[in-house]
Amino acid sequence: MDVSEAIRSRRSIRRYKAGVKIPKEHFEQILEAAMMAPSGCNMRPWEFAVVEDREILSEIMQIHPYANMLHTASAAIIVCGFPQEESSPAAGLWPQDCGASAAYILLESKGLGYGTCWCGVYPNEDRVEALKNIVDTEGIPFCIIAIGVPNEDPAPRGKYDPKKVKFM
Amino acid sequence: MDVSEAIRSRRSIRRYKAGVKIPKEHFEQILEAAMMAPSGCNMRPWEFAVVEDREILSEIMQIHPYANMLHTASAAIIVCGFPQEESSPAAGLWPQDCGASAAYILLESKGLGYGTCWCGVYPNEDRVEALKNIVDTEGIPFCIIAIGVPNEDPAPRGKYDPKKVKFM
Repeated sequence: MDVSEAIRSRRSIRRYKAGVKIPKEHFEQILEAAMMAPSGCNMRPWEFAVVEDREILSEIMQIHPYANMLHTASAAIIVCGFPQEESSPAAGLWPQDCGASAAYILLESKGLGYGTCWCGVYPNEDRVEALKNIVDTEGIPFCIIAIGVPNEDPAPRGKYDPKKVKFM
Repeated sequence: MDVSEAIRSRRSIRRYKAGVKIPKEHFEQILEAAMMAPSGCNMRPWEFAVVEDREILSEIMQIHPYANMLHTASAAIIVCGFPQEESSPAAGLWPQDCGASAAYILLESKGLGYGTCWCGVYPNEDRVEALKNIVDTEGIPFCIIAIGVPNEDPAPRGKYDPKKVKFM
């Protein structure tokens, strides 16, 4: 799929075809893309958890108020971030790095025919702490990305808004 | 260009063909893509400045220590963010939203044949304040993206690292 088409046709998907198993090679392809996102000083401050276990997905839905689409999703990809030390030139950049990595996950998934939905976690402290326990990570749970085969087809939306651009 | 190829072949470009003018339609296409990035509660908390004026580009190089590639770049795209109020469910999400939008700029530009380089601004307070004066924005200058026709061709790098992924 053309990159411009992927960007323009992607929408958040909240209904998936239940019971679909995503091949491991697809997760690896999607997460390889995630790892090729740009990051401050090329620190690549991220790790990923792929959750397919239905019980763990239920736990996630209990601690996150807007993650109900996981009922039908094939899996949740959890992006976890690692802050740099204050003295590093990359200090404070990890949330934007993880944001870029999450965007790459959405687009690579779209190219493979999957739908996704990005559910915010960080900086909500309750969600971060609860998810840290579930995933058992040393990083900071940053976002949850539901993924699966779409069972809805929302129309593209959004267009160029000249009021938001200044030419200098 | 295929989305997966765009993701895998993109590198930060620091040498551009000097003197190239990018058509306004291309900036509009790139910034339309930027505006289609996902954002918390779909707030789209961003604005953009496109700087082609060589004097303003010189000012930017004076206040940012790692933006020297602007010497040969055709322009700088400056992404500015707008925080939500503390009471909003989208509070604190704007840096990750702008990170996703910046990633979309890199990929749409790649699809059009342009090279880019993302230079961090936020949360460095000195850079934020100095750039706020130069761009004259009510938002928070988030990053500078140099853009132009590449005059170097760095090999793709990065690959899937299974140590960074946990399956559950």
